[in-house]
Amino acid sequence: MTQMTLPRTVTFAAVLVFLPGLLAGQQRRRAPLRSPEVNADRTITFRVYAPLAKSVSVGGDMIQDQPRRPMTKDSAGIWSTTLGPFAPDIYDYTFQIDDVTVLDPVNPSVTLGPRTSSSLIEVPGGAPELWDPQPVPHGTVHVNWYESNVVGGLRAVYVYTPPGYEEGQERYPVLYLMHGAGFTQEGWTTTGRANLILDNLIAQGQAKPMVIVMPFGHPQVATTLGFNQPPASDRSLVAQDILGDIMPLVEKTYRVLTDADHRAIAGFSMGGNQSLTIGLDHPELFHWVAGFSAAIPRQQEALERTFATALADPDRTNATLKLLWTACGTDDRGWFPPNQTFAKLLDEKGVRHTFVTTPGAHQWQVWRRNLIALAPLLFVD
Amino acid sequence: MTQMTLPRTVTFAAVLVFLPGLLAGQQRRRAPLRSPEVNADRTITFRVYAPLAKSVSVGGDMIQDQPRRPMTKDSAGIWSTTLGPFAPDIYDYTFQIDDVTVLDPVNPSVTLGPRTSSSLIEVPGGAPELWDPQPVPHGTVHVNWYESNVVGGLRAVYVYTPPGYEEGQERYPVLYLMHGAGFTQEGWTTTGRANLILDNLIAQGQAKPMVIVMPFGHPQVATTLGFNQPPASDRSLVAQDILGDIMPLVEKTYRVLTDADHRAIAGFSMGGNQSLTIGLDHPELFHWVAGFSAAIPRQQEALERTFATALADPDRTNATLKLLWTACGTDDRGWFPPNQTFAKLLDEKGVRHTFVTTPGAHQWQVWRRNLIALAPLLFVD
Repeated sequence: MTQMTLPRTVTFAAVLVFLPGLLAGQQRRRAPLRSPEVNADRTITFRVYAPLAKSVSVGGDMIQDQPRRPMTKDSAGIWSTTLGPFAPDIYDYTFQIDDVTVLDPVNPSVTLGPRTSSSLIEVPGGAPELWDPQPVPHGTVHVNWYESNVVGGLRAVYVYTPPGYEEGQERYPVLYLMHGAGFTQEGWTTTGRANLILDNLIAQGQAKPMVIVMPFGHPQVATTLGFNQPPASDRSLVAQDILGDIMPLVEKTYRVLTDADHRAIAGFSMGGNQSLTIGLDHPELFHWVAGFSAAIPRQQEALERTFATALADPDRTNATLKLLWTACGTDDRGWFPPNQTFAKLLDEKGVRHTFVTTPGAHQWQVWRRNLIALAPLLFVD
Repeated sequence: MTQMTLPRTVTFAAVLVFLPGLLAGQQRRRAPLRSPEVNADRTITFRVYAPLAKSVSVGGDMIQDQPRRPMTKDSAGIWSTTLGPFAPDIYDYTFQIDDVTVLDPVNPSVTLGPRTSSSLIEVPGGAPELWDPQPVPHGTVHVNWYESNVVGGLRAVYVYTPPGYEEGQERYPVLYLMHGAGFTQEGWTTTGRANLILDNLIAQGQAKPMVIVMPFGHPQVATTLGFNQPPASDRSLVAQDILGDIMPLVEKTYRVLTDADHRAIAGFSMGGNQSLTIGLDHPELFHWVAGFSAAIPRQQEALERTFATALADPDRTNATLKLLWTACGTDDRGWFPPNQTFAKLLDEKGVRHTFVTTPGAHQWQVWRRNLIALAPLLFVD
């Protein structure tokens, strides 16, 4: 046995050294603050302890892009406000304390971005939603670490396998699912709940069992590695990473079908652009292509350049593609117009497609529902 | 094609509605702040924009439990300080802005806890450390969602499978690896880098390929589900969850060896207590048992009660266990004394064991190295 003797005096010294920490550690002295609290009427009460602050506000996608709502301070230094009621859904929010935007210090539910993050809160409804855990068989989410040849460093790709995958021998169709600029490869499972959505749709017989591949959409090494990151630069690297690194990894590692009839690509915002461009540029690889609130060019000319491959021979595109599906929230002031322009352009050129408009802005409330709407359409003859 | 027409006036209205957001969005107006920045001399510069704050400080495990270090404000409202130099390692930190403890708003590398979280920064050395990505084959981390019968709700357990797992038919030994009270099931991979550590040790031939199972150590549903959480209550539920829910899931889902000679349990702090109690209470299940900085009772009497099974018949314990291994940092003022007492007690009773003392306090810098020291000892005849 290896052992060291510690002098008895250290115990007493420890008390002295701990004292300043205890006195400074106000968060430990007080009763734990509860924030956020979802009330019975589906309002949310937000609270944050900031006794010295001059002004505190809360913002988030429950109020879309409206101005942040001011909070008021009580005599104990706790700022609070109650907002809503809100529809049952998952919302992100941040506090602004004086001029600094921060996560809720006591909420462990976080959506991580490549530069900034947000806190998350779910307003439950009377019955579980399709993104809620339900007593059905659950698939597995796999975090695959790989050296990206084109980005030059370690990255992770998340892969969902459906319930029963481990026990069987079946091969499955694959959906490549891309996130937007504010997120990472884990966004579609932590915030998007893609795994739970598919678990539920599959259990209800509404979607075919499928593998979902969730790449990191920025051309840089994994943010979780904590190194200083180079800024995102050549965005074509992401396409090269997906086609050259991730697709071979997935097809070597998982029992997936490898023909284009059983391969789909979809994503939102930046990832909507990536899905539409990669998918439509590679009809030999993807026969199911979808963009949610896609961040595509605003001008028709630029759209024609970007999607030249698909537009060049509409008959061939129609004969090849099983599905071209775009969607956008009508309150998405940035991206509704170009998606509308794109849909009109596809119409004019005679490219068969579906353009779904829904309520909502540029927010996860739209994209979870887009996945719920899209998944049942995939890999259906 | 489904389509809606949006009135042309909305575009102009959008500009008006966006304006307040742009004016309020100071974080977007300024050039992106770089924080933290690791300098060539292995010092770290921390920065945070907080123009209205009266005082800002930084604390974290790079300065252990020393008082937080004050930061100073420049004319642009950016507070900064440079600390160190520090040894190459991964450190956590938070800012305290006036009286509020917050993550670094611009650092995407975060370690998530069940109540509070911290930002992470790595100080690289001249050569990659064992917890750094290296050009070796990488294993896979699996996130398994399951309904916990004893906790009553959806939880996730992380499972690492070693490089080559997917291609082969081999069965592997299993290490159950527990986290401390401030973390969740993802702590050992995001902050602990257990997957990269094993990738590297296996590549160097220093550790046997093994499966690692990382449960959630608090008796509550997954924090990522965003529901209000019940407070942690009956801690024996965690043992029931591991033995009754997780172990059957793992042995059904993964190619693991299912005898006690090929099953280990280890963990730090709260998870050290769980590992030592679950492991030593169940010699029929675990023949390799380890605690890192274990949060065990301080009094010898309480230790004797807690570990009565192992102490009752030392000869049988010695004949059964392949390894009983404890470790603690000598600066861990809270937990070094009881771990020392426990080692003496085991000595007195004649229970064969190893007690490793290292520099360091109650911090991840110690636990990553504990895993590096322990893994090569496991499953070796």
